[in-house]
Amino acid sequence: MGIYEPKPEHKFTFGLWTVGNRGRDPFGSEVRDPKTPVELVYLLSEVGAYGVNFHDNDLVPIDATQSEAKRIKREFQKALDETGLVVPMATTNLFFDPVFKDGAFTSNDSRVRAYALQKSMNAIDLGVEFGAEIIVFWGGREGVETDSSKSAIDSIKRTREALNFLCDYAIDNDYGLKFALEAKPNEPRGDLYNATTGHMLGFIETLDHPEMVGVNPETAHEHMSGLNFMHSVAQAWEAGKLFHIDLNDQYPGRYDQDLRFGSRDIKAAFYLVKFLEDVGYVGSRHFDAHAYRTEDYEGVKDFARGCMRTYLMLKEKAEQFNKDSEIQDLLNEIKSEDPKMHDFYGKYNPEKAAALKAQTFDRHSISNRGLKYERLDQLTIELLLGVR
Amino acid sequence: MGIYEPKPEHKFTFGLWTVGNRGRDPFGSEVRDPKTPVELVYLLSEVGAYGVNFHDNDLVPIDATQSEAKRIKREFQKALDETGLVVPMATTNLFFDPVFKDGAFTSNDSRVRAYALQKSMNAIDLGVEFGAEIIVFWGGREGVETDSSKSAIDSIKRTREALNFLCDYAIDNDYGLKFALEAKPNEPRGDLYNATTGHMLGFIETLDHPEMVGVNPETAHEHMSGLNFMHSVAQAWEAGKLFHIDLNDQYPGRYDQDLRFGSRDIKAAFYLVKFLEDVGYVGSRHFDAHAYRTEDYEGVKDFARGCMRTYLMLKEKAEQFNKDSEIQDLLNEIKSEDPKMHDFYGKYNPEKAAALKAQTFDRHSISNRGLKYERLDQLTIELLLGVR
Amino acid sequence: MGIYEPKPEHKFTFGLWTVGNRGRDPFGSEVRDPKTPVELVYLLSEVGAYGVNFHDNDLVPIDATQSEAKRIKREFQKALDETGLVVPMATTNLFFDPVFKDGAFTSNDSRVRAYALQKSMNAIDLGVEFGAEIIVFWGGREGVETDSSKSAIDSIKRTREALNFLCDYAIDNDYGLKFALEAKPNEPRGDLYNATTGHMLGFIETLDHPEMVGVNPETAHEHMSGLNFMHSVAQAWEAGKLFHIDLNDQYPGRYDQDLRFGSRDIKAAFYLVKFLEDVGYVGSRHFDAHAYRTEDYEGVKDFARGCMRTYLMLKEKAEQFNKDSEIQDLLNEIKSEDPKMHDFYGKYNPEKAAALKAQTFDRHSISNRGLKYERLDQLTIELLLGVR
Amino acid sequence: MGIYEPKPEHKFTFGLWTVGNRGRDPFGSEVRDPKTPVELVYLLSEVGAYGVNFHDNDLVPIDATQSEAKRIKREFQKALDETGLVVPMATTNLFFDPVFKDGAFTSNDSRVRAYALQKSMNAIDLGVEFGAEIIVFWGGREGVETDSSKSAIDSIKRTREALNFLCDYAIDNDYGLKFALEAKPNEPRGDLYNATTGHMLGFIETLDHPEMVGVNPETAHEHMSGLNFMHSVAQAWEAGKLFHIDLNDQYPGRYDQDLRFGSRDIKAAFYLVKFLEDVGYVGSRHFDAHAYRTEDYEGVKDFARGCMRTYLMLKEKAEQFNKDSEIQDLLNEIKSEDPKMHDFYGKYNPEKAAALKAQTFDRHSISNRGLKYERLDQLTIELLLGVR
Repeated sequence: MGIYEPKPEHKFTFGLWTVGNRGRDPFGSEVRDPKTPVELVYLLSEVGAYGVNFHDNDLVPIDATQSEAKRIKREFQKALDETGLVVPMATTNLFFDPVFKDGAFTSNDSRVRAYALQKSMNAIDLGVEFGAEIIVFWGGREGVETDSSKSAIDSIKRTREALNFLCDYAIDNDYGLKFALEAKPNEPRGDLYNATTGHMLGFIETLDHPEMVGVNPETAHEHMSGLNFMHSVAQAWEAGKLFHIDLNDQYPGRYDQDLRFGSRDIKAAFYLVKFLEDVGYVGSRHFDAHAYRTEDYEGVKDFARGCMRTYLMLKEKAEQFNKDSEIQDLLNEIKSEDPKMHDFYGKYNPEKAAALKAQTFDRHSISNRGLKYERLDQLTIELLLGVR
Repeated sequence: MGIYEPKPEHKFTFGLWTVGNRGRDPFGSEVRDPKTPVELVYLLSEVGAYGVNFHDNDLVPIDATQSEAKRIKREFQKALDETGLVVPMATTNLFFDPVFKDGAFTSNDSRVRAYALQKSMNAIDLGVEFGAEIIVFWGGREGVETDSSKSAIDSIKRTREALNFLCDYAIDNDYGLKFALEAKPNEPRGDLYNATTGHMLGFIETLDHPEMVGVNPETAHEHMSGLNFMHSVAQAWEAGKLFHIDLNDQYPGRYDQDLRFGSRDIKAAFYLVKFLEDVGYVGSRHFDAHAYRTEDYEGVKDFARGCMRTYLMLKEKAEQFNKDSEIQDLLNEIKSEDPKMHDFYGKYNPEKAAALKAQTFDRHSISNRGLKYERLDQLTIELLLGVR
Repeated sequence: MGIYEPKPEHKFTFGLWTVGNRGRDPFGSEVRDPKTPVELVYLLSEVGAYGVNFHDNDLVPIDATQSEAKRIKREFQKALDETGLVVPMATTNLFFDPVFKDGAFTSNDSRVRAYALQKSMNAIDLGVEFGAEIIVFWGGREGVETDSSKSAIDSIKRTREALNFLCDYAIDNDYGLKFALEAKPNEPRGDLYNATTGHMLGFIETLDHPEMVGVNPETAHEHMSGLNFMHSVAQAWEAGKLFHIDLNDQYPGRYDQDLRFGSRDIKAAFYLVKFLEDVGYVGSRHFDAHAYRTEDYEGVKDFARGCMRTYLMLKEKAEQFNKDSEIQDLLNEIKSEDPKMHDFYGKYNPEKAAALKAQTFDRHSISNRGLKYERLDQLTIELLLGVR
Repeated sequence: MGIYEPKPEHKFTFGLWTVGNRGRDPFGSEVRDPKTPVELVYLLSEVGAYGVNFHDNDLVPIDATQSEAKRIKREFQKALDETGLVVPMATTNLFFDPVFKDGAFTSNDSRVRAYALQKSMNAIDLGVEFGAEIIVFWGGREGVETDSSKSAIDSIKRTREALNFLCDYAIDNDYGLKFALEAKPNEPRGDLYNATTGHMLGFIETLDHPEMVGVNPETAHEHMSGLNFMHSVAQAWEAGKLFHIDLNDQYPGRYDQDLRFGSRDIKAAFYLVKFLEDVGYVGSRHFDAHAYRTEDYEGVKDFARGCMRTYLMLKEKAEQFNKDSEIQDLLNEIKSEDPKMHDFYGKYNPEKAAALKAQTFDRHSISNRGLKYERLDQLTIELLLGVR
């Protein structure tokens, strides 16, 4: 089964907060003892991860003294060195502390907005210190429970101003960074701004440095709204904006589950892996998920191993799909092109428009062709079930 | 109650397909007899609408002969002239005919894609003939039931090529048009591409003429995914992209209900109307909704009158909100700014960043301030219920 | 691959309306020509189905004359005889005709309620004529768009009165029938009464003849609300109420998709099949689904074959799960029982309660045990993917 | 505005956990300092509540010594005496402690099941000690993330055995109690058993003492699944099973929001209040909600006052609806009965069936009647907005 073993070239990464998740939820306390960042690095090394990512406060507690921070960073670097794990991405926790109870960049309190900027600069410094080349921004509290409380327009402008500031900060410091914005529709706020990856893509184009800002789509966050995650990822990729990705699983219309990758919606996970592999995405495959609350740390390892293993199993299925002659024959048949139509495509010119207007189409004969998508989909299901 | 009577300056418009909806649904046949476009214009005039919009085939059947089309258009123009109704928007039906069963611009069949372009040019011509200045595009079948059947990347490229072509067509003909793209997450396809207004905003920036393309957000379509509609509208507005809007109502997580405006989610409707009125949106207030299937045409008029009346009642509430001193005092208190923070805002410079990094923040005292949003929201509810 | 070929003992049935579905939806017209009931019987025979079910009007149009009905029934019987197909279930269409626009048994119009009773008696007679032993009731329009329009209490009472009447009718005629009630949360009405299988189970206990009334749970209908379908099926089974089942597939929070069984949520389909096979359910496996609108009748056959084939593939997986020693060892370990606890179970008595109150529990040591559910679930995923 | 002031006869109650909620959520720590049960009783008295309910551990911490428990209970009783607040309901916390990480009554660990029984008996004793007449059961962890881990059938049987045991315990002790079961579809588990109030109603009929067991429906829990809450409440009421109710608010398809009553879905809240008042429900109006995380304890009071005030405003609207002659005339018209039909209703007999079969119905004329539900609903909206 060596084929499903994680290797560095697979670029499998986990956040400290994922394998370090202690199982706290709105209705229950922690079930697992805390582990230090160093312990988590060794755990990730043991299961075969390539890299580890962090929020500033996953590594350095928000109230740590300078000397504590120094010690923590030294020990963390030592663990990275010993294990060979890298830190491709870092992010800022702008949601946990009570100070962010009404958001960070969009808070109605000017002191909070300033503090959020300061904290973000420091988190960027921290990430860069460990080699991060991507900074993720998830505005966990940038939203409202009641739209009476905040202006949606002000919130957009404030978010833009903050990101412009931080882009310039990174540029000014020659950090060579990319920023990746992560959308979520709700939770922990009633409604979060920039609710989907699509909203983020639209927003990015209004920034001062759109070229250095892309997205970090997360499976669960798009599934929460019942959206097709791969479609959002494809749009981001096609726009040159897929800078990072958060893989996990989620059933629609409920709380943020952060399930083991591929454990809930096998078919959606397959199309996603197939997409990433087909287009040649070379970034991290970052798992932003956590073990069930029923687990101890052996279960956490099972969880982490499962994420990677399922990715690799689905990657193999994707290759099989591309080589399956019956499937490929069907696809070729479906996509067969009428050469007479080619004249009508491509860039507009008046002659082309005139010719197209003059063309007659036999709607009925075109409509009558069965497209064989039931057959195609059934073959996909059988491939997924391993009976092809 | 004259205050709630629709007037031309309110720019209330309806589609022919809305008051002309005959109550057909997946589980039942039509319940209302057909009405001609002319009859529908008079019906709209009777209830006080300002304008009427149409899909090409709402006005001219897909199989109409030239002479039939001519007659229909002449009669329609006469009805417009007699009633004073205008046609601010037109659109193309790219979903009803079986030829579009796998989409129009994204169909796997090259003949369908060409035909869709042709049909769109003709629909643009038709709209312009009646004075439309906005062309809406809703890709009702641009999607999939199984991602095995279509490439998401190809679909994006095909949609872009089609829209670029049609933009150039409109420019070449000096039509002076704006295009407004309408998103929907699903139905009638399993998943539709460009699932939300956010996705559309991202997509528009990749077009050849982004300046002439904006969005047509629809309440129901964002509510279907459980998203905050006003937030999407605000993002579109702030980006200068709110070219048109489709007003109706919808409960999340179900089939496209197209309910009477303001009839299901009063609070969301209030924030939307307040937003549109506060920012000074001057476009059509287009109702893309239809009467319950329990209604005859008297009920259709009740439905249409109710859409407009509820809009005007909520508009009055929005004005009241802005004048309510208790509410405004709370808002001012909530948004009170610390003048010391102002130095940290605005465009980045290294000195500002250094000063901000050196600033100390008392997180605990900031956090301890109660934000009074429960009070603010309760006042909003009381205002909505008419007991303030 | 003979193992996945449908055989009579699998009890695979389809409704006339499923393979006869012509692809009409709210945004598009029919894409497939009509087929007669006889043609559909032969189609079902060709793909290997065991039985065929119908609504009264699938077989005999609502406006058919007596002689037309006679001819249709004679021809249908002949097709059954020639193919060997049986009719295990029949049902009444109480939703399509405009007369039912506000419901049937719960309509506010007393004539509609009476007509619905009459039509149901006739449909029962028709079903019995062809050997049906189960009568399904789906109240497709028993609901509201606005709760101003109907009393929820009256609706419950009216539904009860109608079902009591029809139970007595069946008993009086010695039909030996079982009734199976089918729940749905919404569509085509804004909200349907008795929204879930659970609500139906509660309702049944208030009938005069609860013993002859059970449920007909449908995958899509519970998935629409995001519920775990198998849990509802299990509750029905455990209560002795699983009289029939409608198998299909559906992604949550959207329109009723009626997808090919097992084509969307593989994992949920697996647990469902495993449940039905493990408990020894002997009723029909009825597929209440239809082919994508992209298909011609060859595609309809692909669809029907796929439903049955996927069921059989998942049935094989269920057997494999039960035989997999690693999985079974984990399950045994998870469920290991402390014999000291056995005294505390079973029926209450005061001594047992006193002893239990006196028992001490070491919460911390119990909590610390990892439950290995991540491992167990990963093994399940691997089994489903065919890599075990 | 004295009309909207809470009075004891309104039976407004809150849980200690509601006004005592400290704002912890999955993405953030507590924002409000803890308050003792005594402080919370005084807070509730200040805002005008009638009663206070509790989980065992809201009052007595799970690790309290006997003497601590004694002191706490003495102080709590003193606060009740001084304020006049009553304790109509109590419940057991079977979800917070890590020991319940895989459920309580349905845990795979026999020690947990026994401990859950013991804890429930003690919680019942505690509730009775303070006068509670209703014991609520919410199985917060009775579910799964993966159906591989537990048998759904075993879980039903275990839940039944536990509830039968506890019923007998209460009967044996002459406690004169009613049990009220509370359903929830998911969160904190992936799927919870008995997902809706409907499922609970079905389940109750399988208990040894169904007469002493009813339901405690919660607005948010049914809204999470997108269900019409009032319909579930009506079914419970009509079956004599509405023993208690948890009022709050929630937008569908997301995490459990527990919003201030009537603050999100005004229309649904109206129909619910109207239902409770129209049928003469005399039990507690219990608010199971909490203040936004942006609030301090003044905001918590605003929240609590708002719940009650909005209930009373909607109660007044309900009375207005019942007195509004235009609305009532419409309702009478809609419900007009054809006296000829009366013969067909009521209990079955063969003659009635024969007569009904012989009756002819003019489907078309019946269908053509418009039902005026758009008008009726618009009047309802206008009444809600206070413009009637």
